[in-house]
Amino acid sequence: MSKKVIVLGPKYSYSYNLADDYYAESEIECVSNIGDVFKAVVENDESTGIVPIENMLNGSVRETFLNLRRYSVVILRAFDYKIENILASNRENYSKIMSHSQPLAQCSDFIRAQKNIEIVEVSSTSKAMELASQDKSVAAIGSEKAASHYGVKVINTEISNKDLNITRFIEISKNKPENFKTGEKTSMMIKPLEDRAGILFEILSIFRIKNINLTKIESIPTGVKMNDYVFYIDIEGGLEEKRVADAIEFLKTFVEVDVFGSYDIY
Amino acid sequence: MSKKVIVLGPKYSYSYNLADDYYAESEIECVSNIGDVFKAVVENDESTGIVPIENMLNGSVRETFLNLRRYSVVILRAFDYKIENILASNRENYSKIMSHSQPLAQCSDFIRAQKNIEIVEVSSTSKAMELASQDKSVAAIGSEKAASHYGVKVINTEISNKDLNITRFIEISKNKPENFKTGEKTSMMIKPLEDRAGILFEILSIFRIKNINLTKIESIPTGVKMNDYVFYIDIEGGLEEKRVADAIEFLKTFVEVDVFGSYDIY
Repeated sequence: MSKKVIVLGPKYSYSYNLADDYYAESEIECVSNIGDVFKAVVENDESTGIVPIENMLNGSVRETFLNLRRYSVVILRAFDYKIENILASNRENYSKIMSHSQPLAQCSDFIRAQKNIEIVEVSSTSKAMELASQDKSVAAIGSEKAASHYGVKVINTEISNKDLNITRFIEISKNKPENFKTGEKTSMMIKPLEDRAGILFEILSIFRIKNINLTKIESIPTGVKMNDYVFYIDIEGGLEEKRVADAIEFLKTFVEVDVFGSYDIY
Repeated sequence: MSKKVIVLGPKYSYSYNLADDYYAESEIECVSNIGDVFKAVVENDESTGIVPIENMLNGSVRETFLNLRRYSVVILRAFDYKIENILASNRENYSKIMSHSQPLAQCSDFIRAQKNIEIVEVSSTSKAMELASQDKSVAAIGSEKAASHYGVKVINTEISNKDLNITRFIEISKNKPENFKTGEKTSMMIKPLEDRAGILFEILSIFRIKNINLTKIESIPTGVKMNDYVFYIDIEGGLEEKRVADAIEFLKTFVEVDVFGSYDIY
């Protein structure tokens, strides 16, 4: 367990709440954006970082994938963390709803049904809650922990488009852990070495031949031109398994493969 | 050409600027989020809508893909539109930089190099520009058109991480156009009928057999459980081509295929 865990803050954000639940004995440091979590992690041997990577309803967290490509880190473990958005306000007839863009999207049906309400996107759910504590015309969407901390009254707990809402977070580190090759899942970034048709098909065919199940594929723009991508791929199984090691060794003969390691999901 | 074009506003957003450049004779209506563009388009036979679908540096616009799954629309054409972010402020020593999350990400290197500057995420680049016109401590990142409209002075034109920055926009409609089957590109949504390993490999293999080049594949969460997806796929070629029609006909025997149509990119 690392001495310091760096999370996407501020305090009482979902990232912070997760670290608070799982790493109670570590120091938790909040930074203001996902890129800064990666930056702090690669600059500090003793710290790990926690960032959201995918929400069950909204899909991938783009910023995390762009930074996985940019910084050299490994993944220590993943957490499937239940997101329970609540609406909190110190007045029932609020005129503004504030939150981060992700919870606003996750609660879009509820929000759309509100009449004459101004929707304001702010940088975090905690920030929204803080503003709701200062201004009675504001209702904030965030976590119950945040509402409780800022002393804002929870007025609706059933505002999400779906009952079940899970965000996957990953813990990242600069250094390879001892169990780098062990875990239920292995993540990697695959970069085609040449721009030609059918390369993705060929990559998938190697996993298929070795009977390896892909659970996720994400196209990440290279930034060089439109529709030019590297691929982030999650597979079932750890690097210690021969079929996984064989597939990756062969893939490396025709594409670039950066492995983030094998790890378990909590 | 439709009588009314609905865009992601407010006025002088990049979506608005594009409509203003290409549809000068149509009425342009601004709505406040991407979901509302889709909603207005399906409710109005006479209107088309313009939404961003992918940025060359940041990748896919998640909200557009989620709405392509939710609403029944076709794609009339696509535009590769050059984004030229500029920094504007009425004072050189501003203390805040405001913009929408996308331009903030596109200019992250420039922003990171600024010292003692507060970064504020707002709902649009136009909103940022409006605030910069009212408050001299604010510098806004947005388009030159917006700066000019709000009377804010352009102080830096070289703030993007990359020189070339293109966003692809699509024009959507409720009704199939006459040229639904003609165009350089065909887009579709593919939904696996059962949850089993290797289905994506099988889908890609059909395109490969027919020598059809995929230019884009995007995993869109179904919202049912983590890592459960439908796939948005762009291929080269129009539906009028026999190999394309054959591939899609065969795909329909084992997966659900919703075709958005064939169209050209401008």
